[in-house]
Amino acid sequence: MTGSSLVLILDLAGTFVFAISGAAEGVKHRLDVFGVSVLAFVAGNAGGVIRDLLIGAVPPSAIHNSSYIVVSLIAGVATFLWYRRITRLQQVMLLFDAAGLGLFAVSGTYKALAYGINPFVAGLLGMLTGIGGGMLRDVLVREIPVVLRADFYALAALSGAIVVIVGHVLHWPLLPTTIAGALVCFSMRFVAIRRGWSLPTADGVDNSKPPGNF
Amino acid sequence: MTGSSLVLILDLAGTFVFAISGAAEGVKHRLDVFGVSVLAFVAGNAGGVIRDLLIGAVPPSAIHNSSYIVVSLIAGVATFLWYRRITRLQQVMLLFDAAGLGLFAVSGTYKALAYGINPFVAGLLGMLTGIGGGMLRDVLVREIPVVLRADFYALAALSGAIVVIVGHVLHWPLLPTTIAGALVCFSMRFVAIRRGWSLPTADGVDNSKPPGNF
Amino acid sequence: MTGSSLVLILDLAGTFVFAISGAAEGVKHRLDVFGVSVLAFVAGNAGGVIRDLLIGAVPPSAIHNSSYIVVSLIAGVATFLWYRRITRLQQVMLLFDAAGLGLFAVSGTYKALAYGINPFVAGLLGMLTGIGGGMLRDVLVREIPVVLRADFYALAALSGAIVVIVGHVLHWPLLPTTIAGALVCFSMRFVAIRRGWSLPTADGVDNSKPPGNF
Repeated sequence: MTGSSLVLILDLAGTFVFAISGAAEGVKHRLDVFGVSVLAFVAGNAGGVIRDLLIGAVPPSAIHNSSYIVVSLIAGVATFLWYRRITRLQQVMLLFDAAGLGLFAVSGTYKALAYGINPFVAGLLGMLTGIGGGMLRDVLVREIPVVLRADFYALAALSGAIVVIVGHVLHWPLLPTTIAGALVCFSMRFVAIRRGWSLPTADGVDNSKPPGNF
Repeated sequence: MTGSSLVLILDLAGTFVFAISGAAEGVKHRLDVFGVSVLAFVAGNAGGVIRDLLIGAVPPSAIHNSSYIVVSLIAGVATFLWYRRITRLQQVMLLFDAAGLGLFAVSGTYKALAYGINPFVAGLLGMLTGIGGGMLRDVLVREIPVVLRADFYALAALSGAIVVIVGHVLHWPLLPTTIAGALVCFSMRFVAIRRGWSLPTADGVDNSKPPGNF
Repeated sequence: MTGSSLVLILDLAGTFVFAISGAAEGVKHRLDVFGVSVLAFVAGNAGGVIRDLLIGAVPPSAIHNSSYIVVSLIAGVATFLWYRRITRLQQVMLLFDAAGLGLFAVSGTYKALAYGINPFVAGLLGMLTGIGGGMLRDVLVREIPVVLRADFYALAALSGAIVVIVGHVLHWPLLPTTIAGALVCFSMRFVAIRRGWSLPTADGVDNSKPPGNF
């Protein structure tokens, strides 16, 4: 297996988990099977699509390569059919979601760097890749995006992206940097979930919500 | 009259009908005349604009050719002035809306194919052309997009797009394929409206809403 | 100081004021410090980003030049820390906001013209530059965009843009046209604020809201 096919598989795995989160939100809001599929696609791909539009990578991967749509549709229909069974696996899904976040943050940062975006902005675009799908998912079901309200979610994505940026600037070897970035993001999410961490709001009130996409 | 000017006229007719749906939603939410015009433009053009951004057709038709904006503004101001009279024509508008949907689904699919998008994704982009404007219209007035909740609306658009894709793959002649695609979409909408069809939700509860854009 | 560095400074000043409006909205909706920063960036930059995507200026200025992000983050964190003090300056902020609006409308129109957009559409894109950030800010906190509901806000932006378009078509000299466009927009906002002007809604009910971004 080559490196780039490994990346594609990991990327599709991230899309799949995020798509389930979108589909679950759709079922919760009583959308029909089509609406649930749209939310699956949006949650799994919108972060990457927005990044690609911003850096000029057109058509975006999710449009260019049908696999992203197929994976999202499978996640959507499966969630529609087995909603109760999937939501019962919430703890497992949270872990997968954290893994997906780490992967998206890292791969998004690399892609932005590859398109000549400066490192500071590339890191933020990596973070956007991780959180953008969940934000648009929430807007479509008329919620204030959960990532804006509470939680270390975005911070974990940003931390993973920062590892990639530091590695890029200091010319660290690619593979260890990639793994380190994804691991840093995943670990931060994991600890934040276990300890119920969240960021402060302006009036100091604790604003903690069920964390992450699930 | 050449073929391409016929397409432009049909496209503008679709924009006009969709723009009225946006404007009517704006009046219903008590927007001012400017807000009503913005919603008219969004409902009439956002589907095509998003498609064009995704396939790299920049600037999008609605920006490149002023006619789209002019038609949207006329629809917006007319709806603002004669709201009651227009909403009384609901049955007629539903038919026009179904025609607009068929046209957008077909022309959107062709445009995506012309930009080298693979047929599977091109069909979905055709569907997006038909439903995107209504989705953004609903988000702006803080509604969950009606197309996600119920109805064969998206399915009708998708069916029209699929006819175009099949015709493209099997090298059917252009004009009959175009007409067949638009007719399939229109007929499905028409029957769905008459019989009150809708797609299932996960809990099996009937979720039917007043269908379509009107 | 060269002309283009003057434009950049004015542009960043506009971004700063608009970003404060976004951050203030975020604090009001009890977002965490990350969410407040995102809303600051969105309010300060989304209008220009959408314009740049539509005219094909990719990557958009706000992505290409880190200064826009830095300025937005400073505005976001400052508002988060000193929310009460900043909201007490509402009258001052309204003036700055009117100045930012004039600047964005004028610079947005020029940029669209520079990318070969026809004058009629370029003027509307100039207006969009001024109002787009506030619209997306409102959508993210689940409000119907205030600019759609009431107020001469969009009309003031459009008037500034029209001055630029007229000057462009009639070959007026650049600097006086720029100043005139920004001044027309600023003055209209100023008078509208002082007199509580708003646009009519379809049922003729007065729909006036606290005007502008603040």
